[in-house]
Amino acid sequence: MSLVIVGSIGLDSISTPAGEIQNALGGSAIYGALAGSFFTDAYIVGVVGTDFPIDGLNLLQQKGINLDGLEVKEGKTFRWSGKYNTWNKVETLSTELNVFADFSPQLPESCKSCRSLLLANINPSLQMQVLNQVSGYSHLACDTMNYWIYLCPKEIEQVLRRVNIVFMNEDEVREYTNKENIYSAARDILSLGPQWIIVKRGEYGSVAISNDDMYFAPAYPLEEVKDPTGAGDSFAGAFMGYLANHNILNRAVIKEAILYGTVISALNVADFSVKGLIDKTKAEIDVNKEQLVKWTT
Amino acid sequence: MSLVIVGSIGLDSISTPAGEIQNALGGSAIYGALAGSFFTDAYIVGVVGTDFPIDGLNLLQQKGINLDGLEVKEGKTFRWSGKYNTWNKVETLSTELNVFADFSPQLPESCKSCRSLLLANINPSLQMQVLNQVSGYSHLACDTMNYWIYLCPKEIEQVLRRVNIVFMNEDEVREYTNKENIYSAARDILSLGPQWIIVKRGEYGSVAISNDDMYFAPAYPLEEVKDPTGAGDSFAGAFMGYLANHNILNRAVIKEAILYGTVISALNVADFSVKGLIDKTKAEIDVNKEQLVKWTT
Repeated sequence: MSLVIVGSIGLDSISTPAGEIQNALGGSAIYGALAGSFFTDAYIVGVVGTDFPIDGLNLLQQKGINLDGLEVKEGKTFRWSGKYNTWNKVETLSTELNVFADFSPQLPESCKSCRSLLLANINPSLQMQVLNQVSGYSHLACDTMNYWIYLCPKEIEQVLRRVNIVFMNEDEVREYTNKENIYSAARDILSLGPQWIIVKRGEYGSVAISNDDMYFAPAYPLEEVKDPTGAGDSFAGAFMGYLANHNILNRAVIKEAILYGTVISALNVADFSVKGLIDKTKAEIDVNKEQLVKWTT
Repeated sequence: MSLVIVGSIGLDSISTPAGEIQNALGGSAIYGALAGSFFTDAYIVGVVGTDFPIDGLNLLQQKGINLDGLEVKEGKTFRWSGKYNTWNKVETLSTELNVFADFSPQLPESCKSCRSLLLANINPSLQMQVLNQVSGYSHLACDTMNYWIYLCPKEIEQVLRRVNIVFMNEDEVREYTNKENIYSAARDILSLGPQWIIVKRGEYGSVAISNDDMYFAPAYPLEEVKDPTGAGDSFAGAFMGYLANHNILNRAVIKEAILYGTVISALNVADFSVKGLIDKTKAEIDVNKEQLVKWTT
């Protein structure tokens, strides 16, 4: 069974305390698909302009990522430029939506039999548009961001009522619920219907919360970070990629998914753009995951 | 075998978003001893003034805490007043050292056969004075704070060279080493001689780091905090109290000590002053500890 990821595809220019990179492969769907591709067949649903580099397409294909849902549209690809003055906070220098401005996600036929859907961070109305195209999926997950929480909380609520897994960071959980305590806030979100909320805590890891259970994982310890971009997207992509092989969403599956998400997001932030994800093997990832288990048990 | 705690004993006036309390039992030695007393005989070494409330002494004695090392001196007890505008940051409103200004810790004879020593947050010169009075202890631990790190880093280094366990929070680790990355910073501190550094991360839990191992624990999840005062002291007290029953400092012992420290510091912050520590049983603590293990494995 497979993973479908709907999200942004872009060219990022990023500056961090460790260096900088220009017009590099980025976007939530790219990070998510590369992360998910270690576990399952990953399908990207997104849009690029005619200026999108052929190298980028080749890389995705080499990693076995299915591009049936990739629309190539006359115009320029989505571009984002950001600067990290500290590791926890990014300052957006510019955003050019370009062809992404009119993105209207259409799932190709080949995505009808997939098991795992990740609605990466896009307008919740578009997330709902995708949800209305699928049936028979076991795992429906959404991510979001503070921008949409401010702009269209009602639309987010509609999405939350349809998914069974939610990815949010702590600030998003607090902003959406207007509650300071994340455990109490998580219960509010679970009351809308999701089975699990995965609260991302940056360098402190994550906690998965259901109505009657929790699982805490630290972040994978790193002595050097180069580029935090895509940490949450690669986490969610790996998580949902792992879930694509499991029909039932029990605690053991959630735990493994979180451990893999943790390991892969650490590989991602250890290098610029998607470089940290492309030359790794599943065996290396498993070694790191076992090490993480040892450090937590 | 027993635990000796050297530190402050005071009367605290605290205001938090959950309420306030005046002239309540406080100080690092009090929090540490009450926490440690769940696991072993705890000895307090400290000083109070003649105004120290008899209720406070009675409480310590009821909890079986040995007061041979408690000096009662003519004058007023140490007083501290603080306000928490958020849970993570306290603003000190006033500090009256009073009899604590001339504190010169002397270990009584009854403390010579103890196993576990916790040098709570006091002037590192006084910590060294205590270290020069002990021999044959298995576990020597120190805590500290940013004030001493700025004022006398050389004296802290001397202490670090003599202890085998260090408690510091993330900010203290960074300030002392002048390194941003806590794993790299921890290695600098371990290079001075300690076997383990326990890095406290507030609401995100803690990580124990040795030269070749790590153990991560989340904070015990709480939906309501009332007073964060003494969180680190009760953590360290429980940790060192557990160690008092174990001669060898292996990973399994460190892990249990951290789990108990985590559970007890959560009980502490769930109520004002030491209230959260005094009406609990070891059996209740064990239930919480087993729950924490379930949430992390």
